[in-house]
Amino acid sequence: MVATTIKKHNFSAGPAILPQNVFQEAAQAVLDFNGIGMSILEISHRSKDFEAVMAEAEALVREIGGFDDSYAVLFLSGGASTQFFMAPMNLLGEQEKAAYVDTGTWSSKAIKEAKLFGNVEVLASSKADNYNYIPKEYSVPKDAVYLHLTSNNTIFGTQYQAFPDSPVPIVCDMSSDMFSRPFEANKFGLIYAGAQKNIGPAGVTLVIVKKEWIGRAGRKLPSMLDYSIHLEGESMYNTPPVFPIYVMMLTLRWIKETGGLKMVEQHNQAKAKLLYDEIDNNPCFKGTAAREDRSLMNACFLPTNPDYEATFLDTCKKADISGLKGHRSVGGFRASIYNAMPMESVEVLVEVMKDFAQKNG
Amino acid sequence: MVATTIKKHNFSAGPAILPQNVFQEAAQAVLDFNGIGMSILEISHRSKDFEAVMAEAEALVREIGGFDDSYAVLFLSGGASTQFFMAPMNLLGEQEKAAYVDTGTWSSKAIKEAKLFGNVEVLASSKADNYNYIPKEYSVPKDAVYLHLTSNNTIFGTQYQAFPDSPVPIVCDMSSDMFSRPFEANKFGLIYAGAQKNIGPAGVTLVIVKKEWIGRAGRKLPSMLDYSIHLEGESMYNTPPVFPIYVMMLTLRWIKETGGLKMVEQHNQAKAKLLYDEIDNNPCFKGTAAREDRSLMNACFLPTNPDYEATFLDTCKKADISGLKGHRSVGGFRASIYNAMPMESVEVLVEVMKDFAQKNG
Repeated sequence: MVATTIKKHNFSAGPAILPQNVFQEAAQAVLDFNGIGMSILEISHRSKDFEAVMAEAEALVREIGGFDDSYAVLFLSGGASTQFFMAPMNLLGEQEKAAYVDTGTWSSKAIKEAKLFGNVEVLASSKADNYNYIPKEYSVPKDAVYLHLTSNNTIFGTQYQAFPDSPVPIVCDMSSDMFSRPFEANKFGLIYAGAQKNIGPAGVTLVIVKKEWIGRAGRKLPSMLDYSIHLEGESMYNTPPVFPIYVMMLTLRWIKETGGLKMVEQHNQAKAKLLYDEIDNNPCFKGTAAREDRSLMNACFLPTNPDYEATFLDTCKKADISGLKGHRSVGGFRASIYNAMPMESVEVLVEVMKDFAQKNG
Repeated sequence: MVATTIKKHNFSAGPAILPQNVFQEAAQAVLDFNGIGMSILEISHRSKDFEAVMAEAEALVREIGGFDDSYAVLFLSGGASTQFFMAPMNLLGEQEKAAYVDTGTWSSKAIKEAKLFGNVEVLASSKADNYNYIPKEYSVPKDAVYLHLTSNNTIFGTQYQAFPDSPVPIVCDMSSDMFSRPFEANKFGLIYAGAQKNIGPAGVTLVIVKKEWIGRAGRKLPSMLDYSIHLEGESMYNTPPVFPIYVMMLTLRWIKETGGLKMVEQHNQAKAKLLYDEIDNNPCFKGTAAREDRSLMNACFLPTNPDYEATFLDTCKKADISGLKGHRSVGGFRASIYNAMPMESVEVLVEVMKDFAQKNG
């Protein structure tokens, strides 16, 4: 067996594993934040200690992702599900058109919400194949305001290996692979990501949007739904989710200290290679996603014999492997191996898979 | 001096002090939740451990507040500021009318947002007197869908001592005095409260709404803005703010263990009496709010000599008293003494006020 000091190997699809030192520092801050004699849970969001957290979080997002001052960096609540409608509400005029690619459950929801605010053209969909690949054969209409993509599809284990060339800016839901690899910032007009996979805990959503785009739809909006209000208020128009933002800041610090997105990507590639190699070579399992579109974040695989399903999950449980059950839309197993997942845990999983094949294969 | 083991006496208006045992338990859960070998920050919201938290939080809200099954209990994000528009969006038809009483900054914002969705009649306002009292001379039109009130006004230190008789259900922003005293549940059609004063940390909003009211406006809404979607999804239509909900649950447990709302109210009355008596008797200070409307949560007071302002804040700082600076709309000082504020901290403040008067009065 791989020697390990980890209590549980957490392959949950999200909320998901965060770096161990983030847990330590976050717990300390709940007891006494910055040595000020108060908990992070009881301090004013207008205190200088928390204003420093917000400033550092924004600076880290800009540094890690390469976003210059032409982008607004906002920390909002409501999850990606709120951005599904807030993006078109702010960006898409009622007579205008937006282009969407349908690569899974979350894309479909984004499409449904966008239809409330303008014309939506679905350029391609892999729905007929249970979303097991990323469509590539389509052209993006030049008269669309934006092209909407879901960069990684948590449920189906697919991911854009490269973003398509587009004549219009991309609006991208990066909830499940944000800051897991380098990307060209200037291809994007808007990026949004619920924090609870790679960049923090549940309860805060990162929104990065071209400042010149804010307000372009010209709608009269409730204040909390208006990007311009949040930009003006520096994400403190109302009381922000203080603790989730703090933990996101700690996680971003860890990404920077790890060496930034290049190093994070190398680590993610190595983990994914180890796991997918085992899936491909092990007679008890088979992958579900098209090889060229396989996600570095979520590896979905089925047992080659339906009897294996319960027994393998049981074996995993005994090895302190948690969160491996696949989503009901795909079945089988799903190993989510986000940024903070250590190689050690993937090694344990692969070893358990090998053992399982020896006993059952 | 009052002997104290408290590191800082936190009079912050919000986010605000929570019970010390809540900080202890929350910190432990960040390291290892329920002894499962994982942090509360990394577990799935669909795990049985977190589903138990949600169920207990809902049960505690119903038990503490006396809300029967005709009410939906929702845990949402976006703060009270989101409810300012979400309530009328869900409840008020475009041709219908809602009645509002303007008792401060937050009431005004609620009025502004409601106007986007229907007719708003402002029955009374204390704005001309810098909101230093709660208007009582008005009659509520029978054809209004609801009467909107802000039960406690954090900035101005006023609070409804009794809710008015109303021919229509009350919609109430209880953000700053939720569960600080008993109230008649069935007077209310909807109650909303950002958690970060009496019932938890920033990042979750409690919404309690008559089920029969949900959907009455008949608007086609984005999913995340539709109470019916959140009711159906049991506040898990999307990933909820896991940690803030957990800390709210711990805080609700503490309220129950303290003896429920009657005991909490007694404690709050005793603290407020001690403080207001000192404000009234001390020659260096004077209260700003009308006596009959004084808040049990936020005591606002001014120095009788402008020179005292900086020196008194400095004296407080040396006594480890934090968060006493008044809001810019009123100036002077504001002592927020929410549920979790111990009598001991109020005693320390009062002693410092007495000392200050001896030296300066």
